[in-house]
Parts: sequence; C-alpha cells; structure tokens
Amino acid sequence: MSVQRDADAAIPNQAPADTPSNTPAGAPADAPRPRGRLLGLGVGPGDPELITVKALRLLKAAPVVAYFVAKGKKGNAFSIIEAHLHDAQIHLPLVYPVTTEALEPPLSYEAIIADFYDSIAHVLAGHLDAGRDVAVICEGDPFFYGSYMYLHDRLAPRFHAEVVPGVCAMLGGAAVLGAPLVYRNQTLSVLSGVLPEAELKRRLADADAAVIMKLGRNFDKVRRVLDELGLARRALYVERATMANQRIVPLADVDPMASPYFSLLVVPGEKWQG
Amino acid sequence: MSVQRDADAAIPNQAPADTPSNTPAGAPADAPRPRGRLLGLGVGPGDPELITVKALRLLKAAPVVAYFVAKGKKGNAFSIIEAHLHDAQIHLPLVYPVTTEALEPPLSYEAIIADFYDSIAHVLAGHLDAGRDVAVICEGDPFFYGSYMYLHDRLAPRFHAEVVPGVCAMLGGAAVLGAPLVYRNQTLSVLSGVLPEAELKRRLADADAAVIMKLGRNFDKVRRVLDELGLARRALYVERATMANQRIVPLADVDPMASPYFSLLVVPGEKWQG
Repeated sequence: MSVQRDADAAIPNQAPADTPSNTPAGAPADAPRPRGRLLGLGVGPGDPELITVKALRLLKAAPVVAYFVAKGKKGNAFSIIEAHLHDAQIHLPLVYPVTTEALEPPLSYEAIIADFYDSIAHVLAGHLDAGRDVAVICEGDPFFYGSYMYLHDRLAPRFHAEVVPGVCAMLGGAAVLGAPLVYRNQTLSVLSGVLPEAELKRRLADADAAVIMKLGRNFDKVRRVLDELGLARRALYVERATMANQRIVPLADVDPMASPYFSLLVVPGEKWQG
Repeated sequence: MSVQRDADAAIPNQAPADTPSNTPAGAPADAPRPRGRLLGLGVGPGDPELITVKALRLLKAAPVVAYFVAKGKKGNAFSIIEAHLHDAQIHLPLVYPVTTEALEPPLSYEAIIADFYDSIAHVLAGHLDAGRDVAVICEGDPFFYGSYMYLHDRLAPRFHAEVVPGVCAMLGGAAVLGAPLVYRNQTLSVLSGVLPEAELKRRLADADAAVIMKLGRNFDKVRRVLDELGLARRALYVERATMANQRIVPLADVDPMASPYFSLLVVPGEKWQG
C-alpha cells in the first residue's frame, strides 16, 4: 500500500498552475494526487455576450471542455463558446445517441440515455482522476433543465463539483420580448409543453405569470389551451431568443409544424401600477 | 417651426461617440437630436463575477448609471458594479422613500412608491431627452421581480429601451446549494413568502419543484407549511447566495427572526434516474 501511495505521489499534477484543484473533504486519505474539478458552466441563452465573466474565466482555464450536441449538429452550446477555445484544450463533444423520445420497442429512450450518461460520466471521471479540471458547457443554466444535471448527479458524490449559474432561456426570452415577467408577489409557473393538455390547462389557469418551454411539436396543443383560457392576448412567442437567428412571431401567426425546440411562450404577470 | 427645428439641430449630440443612441421608430419627425437609450442591466445575484460580458460592456459605456438603494444603505446592486464605475459617469442613486410596506394610515405604500417611480422616471427622461444613455443596474434579472420594471413600464413607450437579462437569485441559490432544480418535464413554481399560508400550502403541494423568495419575516410561516407537507427534508435554505457573506443553514437551524430579505428556499425536483 505504501509503495502504491509513493508511486501515485510521484506522478506530477497535470492540472495547470492557474486552475487549482480542490480535494473534496470526503477524499480518501491515501489519494494525495489532487483530482480535477467538475465545472458546470452556464453560458447563457444564445448571445455569446450573455456569458458571465466567471464562466468565461473558468472556460478559458479548463484543460478539458465538454459540451452536449445532437448527432450531426454543431450544437448551440458550442457556438456560444467557440471563439474562446484554444488548441491546448481537450475538446470533448458529448453526442446524444438519440434525438427523440419516441422510439419503437424494445428500444427505450430512458435506458439508452441512462447508458449514455453512464458512459460519459466514466470518461469525465478519467480526466478528473488524472487531475484535469473538466468544464461542461451548458446552454442557459446548468441546473435549469440542463443535461449537465445527470452528470452532476453521477459525479458530484465522488469529485469536487462547482456550478456557475447562467442566464436561463426564459429570462433571455422575456428580455427580447420587452416583457416584465413577475411583479411583487405574483407566482411564476414554468411549464413544459410536453405536459398533457388537461394538466397544462389546470396549471395555466392558476398561474399569475407563466413560461412554457419545450414547445416544438407541442405548440398547437399549447396555443389551444391559451385560447380556451383567454390568455392568448397576453401570450408572447419567441424562437431562439438572443441567438443570431432569433424570431419573434405573433401567436396567431406561428406555424405549429415549424416551431423549433428552442422556442418559448411567455405569459407576463399583469402590470402593477405602483 | 423650422427655426425651432434648426435651433434644435445645432445643439451637439451629447451622447459619447462610443454609445450610439437609437431613435425609436415612433419618434416625431421634428426631433432630430438622437435621444438616449434606457438600458436595464441585470448584474446577477451578488458575486460581481456573475455579471454578463454584455452588461459589463454597456455599464462601462453608459454616461449615466442609476441604481436602487435603501435609505442609508450602500446597496447590493451598487456593490456588484462599484469596481467598474468611473468618474466621467453620472452616478444616480435611486433612494427608496420607504423600506416597509406596513405603514400607518393615511400613508399608503402603494401611493408613496408610485410617486417615487413617477419622479425617478421624470429625472431619467431628462437625461434621455438630452441624448444620454441611462443604465439602470438591477440585481439578478431586470424582469424577474425587479424594481426596474416600474421604470420600464413608464419609459419604454416613449424611449428606446433595452434589457440585458441576468442570472437571477434563484439560480444563484441552486448553484451554491449544489441542487439541480428541475428535471425533464417537471413544473417549477416560483412563490413569494408573502403569500397567505393556505395559498402557499396549496401551491407547494402541487409543485414538482419550487423556489420560495421574499422570506424575511415570512420564514416561520413558510417552514411550517413545508413541515406540514413533508417537504422539509427536501428543502434547502441559503442567505445572500453568491455574495461574500453567503450563509447556507439547515432548515431546522434557521432563526426565523434573523432571516434576511435576500434569503431563499429551494425545493429541488425529484432526481430523474436517466
């Protein structure tokens, strides 16, 4: 054991001097080599300038930069940070094995995606064990419907993990729509367009203000519910808010067959005349 | 009329060359002098590094910088951006005339605060009419329970207004708590601790994940509701998340008489084992 420990100690710390690695409090006493940190970096809703100063600093200093991407795509997250990457970094695209949850049996989205996260976590753990910090790039905010969460849940118990919050898509949307979202003591409900129609209706009827995400092929259902509740006049729609190809379209003019995943609806709270 | 127009045109544009002002589409044809832009800048939850690159750029370039502050206080928003201010800028503290909503009749919080926003809007309009951009500094995000919203509602109909979204307090809180907030198609409810106990209970019982803001003297009531719903084991509490004096305290140990306004509770969604 002591021989092994000495051998480990002789391996130089591979983390650059400007990215100190913290050893978590729970690390075993016989692991003297500093391990890398897992960094979940929120990079904002799309406009590359909406990254925070902190995320930018940690991104530039990270020896390994990982980002989720759909098969055959460049990826929005990658586009946001591309200009800041440099050749000395290891770039690690994390390519989703499936892009839709609708699969024919015996295929199961849940099983395939769980295997995918397991295998990514294994790869990242290798870098962390070798003393390299790993920055996982997250569109919007890492803990707000972000794929990073599944890596965090797998790795945070074993490694030092730090999350840098980001500007989430719904606030990027409210900003470009010029729509103050919630006043004073109003309640905000953030809903997924995937929800069943009856549940969407019940929750929207009870909300002071609401944001509906994950529209895509759910758009038609959501618009119908807004119409039925008399909320259509207050609802505002935007595609790819703050991105270069952003589109703001009146609700009635949206083509339900062409609404992209990165679209959202905002129902702002009633203005307070204070 | 034409004499007046010529006289106006002879007044030099007072906006610095590096901060071009946009004339709104609806500006009258006889107002050739470019007017300033109203900029609502989200500067994040407290850590000065959690400002976005865009907000920082616009802040540095703005000839007038306004920020809300309580009487006799320096102000959190000011602390976040203080290091970036320079002497060539006009600094405009907007001092709240009252700090509590509980006033003795005939005083009315609503009336006093409405007068306050009216008079500030008048001052800012003066700068905008003179061609100076005005940056209003907003802790967190401008459209997420921000005082900026009341200025926006008053001034956006008359001036070009642009909002730069920011990292909101609840995402700063989730990040420092290491708490993934919402998975997949979970619903997030953002609630004010000011709500009546029965309404809080009803809404929390129906939420997949929740954030409760504006705790302060409402803390005891909120904790009781969490206890009754069996949510106390999932709830996480933080004061002044991401600020230098941040405190994370187990729910049971919070002193209800000492919970500050800038504290919040997070009830994360149940983990998805994908």
